[in-house]
Amino acid sequence: MRTTINELLSDYKKVLHHDITVQGWVRAFRSNRFIALNDGSTINNLQVVVDFEKFDENILKNISTASSVKIVGEVVESQGAGQNIEVIAKKIQILGDNFTEERDKTILQPKKHSLEVLREQAHLRFRTNLFGAVFRVRSAISFAIHQFFNQNQFFYMNTPIITGADAEGAGEMFGVTNFDLNNIPRDENGDIDFEQDFFGKKTNLTVSGQLNVETAMMGLGRVYTFGPTFRAENSNTTRHLAEFWMVEPEVAFNNLEDNIDLAEDFLKYVIGYALENCKDDLEFLDKRFAEEQKQKPEKDRASEGLIEKLENVIKKRFKRVSYTEAIEILKNSKENKKGKFQFPIEDWGADLQSEHERYLVEKHFESPVVLFDYPKEIKAFYMKLNEDGKTVAAMDVLFPGIGEIIGGSQREERYDVLTEKMKTMNVDAHELWWYLDTRKFGSVPHAGFGLGLERLVLFVTGMTNIRDVIPFPRTPKNAEF
Amino acid sequence: MRTTINELLSDYKKVLHHDITVQGWVRAFRSNRFIALNDGSTINNLQVVVDFEKFDENILKNISTASSVKIVGEVVESQGAGQNIEVIAKKIQILGDNFTEERDKTILQPKKHSLEVLREQAHLRFRTNLFGAVFRVRSAISFAIHQFFNQNQFFYMNTPIITGADAEGAGEMFGVTNFDLNNIPRDENGDIDFEQDFFGKKTNLTVSGQLNVETAMMGLGRVYTFGPTFRAENSNTTRHLAEFWMVEPEVAFNNLEDNIDLAEDFLKYVIGYALENCKDDLEFLDKRFAEEQKQKPEKDRASEGLIEKLENVIKKRFKRVSYTEAIEILKNSKENKKGKFQFPIEDWGADLQSEHERYLVEKHFESPVVLFDYPKEIKAFYMKLNEDGKTVAAMDVLFPGIGEIIGGSQREERYDVLTEKMKTMNVDAHELWWYLDTRKFGSVPHAGFGLGLERLVLFVTGMTNIRDVIPFPRTPKNAEF
Repeated sequence: MRTTINELLSDYKKVLHHDITVQGWVRAFRSNRFIALNDGSTINNLQVVVDFEKFDENILKNISTASSVKIVGEVVESQGAGQNIEVIAKKIQILGDNFTEERDKTILQPKKHSLEVLREQAHLRFRTNLFGAVFRVRSAISFAIHQFFNQNQFFYMNTPIITGADAEGAGEMFGVTNFDLNNIPRDENGDIDFEQDFFGKKTNLTVSGQLNVETAMMGLGRVYTFGPTFRAENSNTTRHLAEFWMVEPEVAFNNLEDNIDLAEDFLKYVIGYALENCKDDLEFLDKRFAEEQKQKPEKDRASEGLIEKLENVIKKRFKRVSYTEAIEILKNSKENKKGKFQFPIEDWGADLQSEHERYLVEKHFESPVVLFDYPKEIKAFYMKLNEDGKTVAAMDVLFPGIGEIIGGSQREERYDVLTEKMKTMNVDAHELWWYLDTRKFGSVPHAGFGLGLERLVLFVTGMTNIRDVIPFPRTPKNAEF
Repeated sequence: MRTTINELLSDYKKVLHHDITVQGWVRAFRSNRFIALNDGSTINNLQVVVDFEKFDENILKNISTASSVKIVGEVVESQGAGQNIEVIAKKIQILGDNFTEERDKTILQPKKHSLEVLREQAHLRFRTNLFGAVFRVRSAISFAIHQFFNQNQFFYMNTPIITGADAEGAGEMFGVTNFDLNNIPRDENGDIDFEQDFFGKKTNLTVSGQLNVETAMMGLGRVYTFGPTFRAENSNTTRHLAEFWMVEPEVAFNNLEDNIDLAEDFLKYVIGYALENCKDDLEFLDKRFAEEQKQKPEKDRASEGLIEKLENVIKKRFKRVSYTEAIEILKNSKENKKGKFQFPIEDWGADLQSEHERYLVEKHFESPVVLFDYPKEIKAFYMKLNEDGKTVAAMDVLFPGIGEIIGGSQREERYDVLTEKMKTMNVDAHELWWYLDTRKFGSVPHAGFGLGLERLVLFVTGMTNIRDVIPFPRTPKNAEF
């Protein structure tokens, strides 16, 4: 394949004083002489030097921000600061038209635009430095996730997106139908006749692949699913998407401690991969983050820079704290005693809110924290009941600035305990016959967790609105593009 | 992490005569003495030797097909044929109950079951040799896809699953709604008021990420999407799924020839990766394939073994043939003249059917074939019009036994030609305003293609029904599990 600007800039010595061909988009054309050329392979632009006397006026006229060009030229050591090399143009070809007037109504106009405006033109924001960086980092993180699991002998399982199950109760579901909504068939009782729908039953978009991936785990040992999941919740916040990507590993023979070890190794691997492979993008995001902090009142500023924060997460062992200990810490905290929590902590059994999680991570421990052994009442039916009869082997990994980034548990592998719990928690055992089968034939202890990809990308990029870390966000009243 | 059976069998020398711990499922317990233990990490079982005099009768009684055990024992060189090592059990712990009576109503009963019956118990089929192999190969192929693109500087872009667009016309779409179907809101004209639905408009499940990924390509250069896509088509065949996974790369500055090169390199890389990394599973599938062939009348048998076929695909350069040449070959073929095609080839312009594709690949060229430059009328609106004004720069890669495995094209990057074509082909330009924007501001020549993951897995595993290469198939009247 041809040379990208990334290859050229990182390994230029062998082409110095040779002619090369580059293609890309003009980011700027200064003094009718210097083209800043970008091809998306890196955040860095290639400087192309144009001697205007050597080129046709018609060509020069069409070199403007956002236009695309093909350039043949000689690679030379750069005279100016800021780059090692530049290219002296010998041939210039305009590849694509640039509708300049229309361009100036878009975010491609060469001036600063707000994140809100960029979001309204999500189809064009890939062409900005910021979103180029964010989506290259997102891509690297996704690859690192696959690589981590592959290296640790996990198998990738695609769990279904369209599901007939409705039982897990992780959240509101979207309906999927092939009915003509103007003409929905009814049965003799006047009820909607889902037997006539495409799948012969009511179907929804999945909220989690966990129950399905557990069945694969019971044969293949170490598996993970990584795909889109959905929530039909009317949450218009900077933290919620109706469609987002989730990674869910599930491991046979793992207990809660193994599960915490896996989550910690996994997060450190993926963040380390980004630090190593996205240096230029992260440096750009680090500077942006620092500038954003300067705009804030001093008391609200982050205590660490972006890259510093990522490096610290990798260095330190995560703090592991039981729910019971956490409640004691919170109950006795100054914040609680002075009534500074919106939800005061009084008794064991309280569900922890974001303010409590952030207190533990950012104030008390100043470290990522893994909370474990939660009261059974506030956690899902499939989590393993501990010997105390009061808690389940659940775990949440809490990160600074983000709160919960991973939630998981050892699963209840005992058929009788599981069915008893389903009864108490009103989960339909009939619908989940296949899930229960996994506990009947050689059931094994096992554990797993879920990570929302976008939360991790938020953490690594320092972005603050989840709509800015997925290419085309789906949110209430918004499915544009 | 602890040792898997795969690690143990492939690197046993360092643990010879040492005690190890293994956990897994009993595949068979012969003569009250030999456990064939499998943990999913490999198709190969570990032989565990049990001296029945040393163990409690209650334990021995519970060792049966499908039960799960934890074993501590010494690794020794094997006395018997078929394995290098075995483990002499010192401690045996039964991990999970085995409901033997119920088991014998399932596919876990130790006897042969048809693929149809296995499909009805998709949640348990991961525990068979066949489906263990198929899904390990599927996982390896998925990883190889990510690795190929990562090594070639592509960025992974998640295109949206829920889409407001309806324009591409690649197939029937499923509706996504949050309406209570018993109570759909209407506007003043009595029409369904989609403004009140979750996204404020009518939404569907995506049939392709291409148009979205093209917008990312226009900033990032080389991108690919890899995710689930959907077709609400009532096709009850061995080749169709309502939900399947598709890979779609898109590359700036590529023309049709670059695109064909990319597709060929890509397929060879992925198949080569499977050959190298799935040896044991492919050997099993190769034997199975050979046995299946024996059941067939001689004239219907495959001319190559499974592994042989894969190795040949990697060795040979794919045959590249224009549509026009292909029509000549087909028109003049004995088959056509003798009236053996269901759809006789008479004139240039005919759409090729599966029988024609298979004739070219399996009879005429005996090689994978890339057809290119199709009549514009039979291809999609976004394909680049060639200079002849009659054909478009489309390409299909045809594989033996499968037919079309990849379809792609150079895209029409010229705004005026594209809009003209959309008009002719009745594609709604208003709805696709954002797609047209990519042709207004620095449009560039570009090309891409789509590969259905399941078709490739069929090809590599030698399976014949597409429902057997995805964990939980979704087809008409079927969304179980």
